[in-house]
Amino acid sequence: METTTKINITRHIKNPLITPKDVKPLRDDFTVECVFNAGVARYKDEVILLLRVAERPKQEDANKLRVPILRQKGDTFEVDIHTLDRSDAAYDFSDPRKVKQKDIDTYVYLTSMSHLRLARSKNGVDFVVEEKAFIFPSNRYEAFGTEDSRITLLDGVYYINYTAVSDKGITTALAKTTDFESVERMGIIFTTENRDVTIFPEKIGGQYFALHRPVPKQIGRAEMWTATSPNLTHWGEHQFLMGVDSVWESLKIGGGAVPFKTEKGWVEIYHGADRTNRYSLGAVLLDLEDPNKIIAKTKEPILEPEAIYEVEGFFGNVVFTDGVLFEDNIVKIYYGGADNVIALAEIHIEELYRALGV
Amino acid sequence: METTTKINITRHIKNPLITPKDVKPLRDDFTVECVFNAGVARYKDEVILLLRVAERPKQEDANKLRVPILRQKGDTFEVDIHTLDRSDAAYDFSDPRKVKQKDIDTYVYLTSMSHLRLARSKNGVDFVVEEKAFIFPSNRYEAFGTEDSRITLLDGVYYINYTAVSDKGITTALAKTTDFESVERMGIIFTTENRDVTIFPEKIGGQYFALHRPVPKQIGRAEMWTATSPNLTHWGEHQFLMGVDSVWESLKIGGGAVPFKTEKGWVEIYHGADRTNRYSLGAVLLDLEDPNKIIAKTKEPILEPEAIYEVEGFFGNVVFTDGVLFEDNIVKIYYGGADNVIALAEIHIEELYRALGV
Repeated sequence: METTTKINITRHIKNPLITPKDVKPLRDDFTVECVFNAGVARYKDEVILLLRVAERPKQEDANKLRVPILRQKGDTFEVDIHTLDRSDAAYDFSDPRKVKQKDIDTYVYLTSMSHLRLARSKNGVDFVVEEKAFIFPSNRYEAFGTEDSRITLLDGVYYINYTAVSDKGITTALAKTTDFESVERMGIIFTTENRDVTIFPEKIGGQYFALHRPVPKQIGRAEMWTATSPNLTHWGEHQFLMGVDSVWESLKIGGGAVPFKTEKGWVEIYHGADRTNRYSLGAVLLDLEDPNKIIAKTKEPILEPEAIYEVEGFFGNVVFTDGVLFEDNIVKIYYGGADNVIALAEIHIEELYRALGV
Repeated sequence: METTTKINITRHIKNPLITPKDVKPLRDDFTVECVFNAGVARYKDEVILLLRVAERPKQEDANKLRVPILRQKGDTFEVDIHTLDRSDAAYDFSDPRKVKQKDIDTYVYLTSMSHLRLARSKNGVDFVVEEKAFIFPSNRYEAFGTEDSRITLLDGVYYINYTAVSDKGITTALAKTTDFESVERMGIIFTTENRDVTIFPEKIGGQYFALHRPVPKQIGRAEMWTATSPNLTHWGEHQFLMGVDSVWESLKIGGGAVPFKTEKGWVEIYHGADRTNRYSLGAVLLDLEDPNKIIAKTKEPILEPEAIYEVEGFFGNVVFTDGVLFEDNIVKIYYGGADNVIALAEIHIEELYRALGV
């Protein structure tokens, strides 16, 4: 006898809200491949999305691959295009997203370079995408791109953490803005290999608090940890929070949206991938005073790839969130579909409590 | 025409100074397999070595493998012995040091468990090894063992960082002592995967400073980074310091001894491994005011596996240091040979300057 009621989560009728054709490439010789995984903030009367925009050089010859990479030129960094011969046995071209150098068994190019770009909306649904970058790769740790961002409002300052990728590894960097016009970089806060960092919007026990997701090489798996900080730039007191669990999250898990506060605890919408690399979203409820304590966790995903724009795209079968708005008891989940588009799903907090069993 | 003069470094006549037979196992049903990679400190009139002692359960059946692992029992942790069947296809037993679970492609057991144990000497050569552990695995992050330690004296307190290994990954934890009798744990300072952390013995620019060696999974290599800290527990401002270079260090590199101060800069004796996993020691000279600046680096190893106790052992062709004493212009390098014994090599600082070309 089946007693589970399907979770009542509503995809927005206008989904997908933003697609690559809504985004102008920064350069005429590049195309926009993907727009996805946006940081989310409410700023004055606007909803802000900090989009991850992946652009790649226009290709001219099917036997070649033109790849973007940042190179230092004097004191500044500029995007170069390297042309690789697809018959070059030194490289492995089998993954459409990246190129591996065989002898050192590591990826040495991505096929696209991501930057972070603002989109603004009055109603949270119809967005205007800016034509310029907000955070563009500009140092050695960003040579392969700047990726998924999360935005946390703390004492009037919007802190933006994002993934900085280079030949030195996948790291998490921090920046801040007060006006979404100018932005100041604050350096690397989690060293390689770490992404899916979400900073809580309040101090807890006198310290800043974050979820992070280290990826170990030899022992262990891609799972969620916590850390504290006295100042947002230096992090420690690392603790393991939760690991891979049900089938839908059996390959890896990681933080998703910036956690939001409810009367029952901190709610974190996180992602899990199964063994086929199908990414879904779950929720976990953490203790208000000590987020290292898990109160409840959804057994099944609250959102999984089902719509066409989630199932098919640059990297199919993916829903992935970097941010939500929690307003009027509705959780508005902005998410990437198929690593390709921006979409929105809404769930009432009472329904989320029900899914959490609290 | 060969113009290089071989580096004048002297292995101690009494090498190896400590071998497994000098160490009493903590339990009668365990044997001491290895004693190596010791943290080093001068404390009052003694030279202190904090040995890594690897013990394993006595084996009873060639078809079985008995492996040690820490398990939580109520509020405490105790060592359990699991017995694996060598014919069990779920596991890969090919590495004598560890057991891989095939379906999740990660190591789930080590064949020995390491703890940290004190040895004391008046002359720095003849050591008495204590019979009890100083730091024994005792929490979930240490379930596979506590390994290589480094000791840094700061304002009268000896800070000990060590590798904490568990199914959650390879992390670096911190502890402190003032008397080498009692010790207080301070938590994890670098999350997985990170080891070879060396904390400088002075604040620099008002902050604590360390070298660390993250190991990324997807992109990048096992190379040396720096970080700063306001309080020793929280670390940030991560910067890449140096990467794999010459043939002898072409596979990976990492911090070795706690850096020591000279008139020409901070000297760091580090390790590098070549593609055959042969570990040697090199030296790098870092700017006194800003250790992110490299002044000089030795082109060739200053010490490489040549003696019988370095070439043959538990894991052959390894010299590896966690600490030196710099006294009377002599750098006294305590090091592990073949992951099996403790040895000592001495080099005059002027000779080291010559090797560094400064």
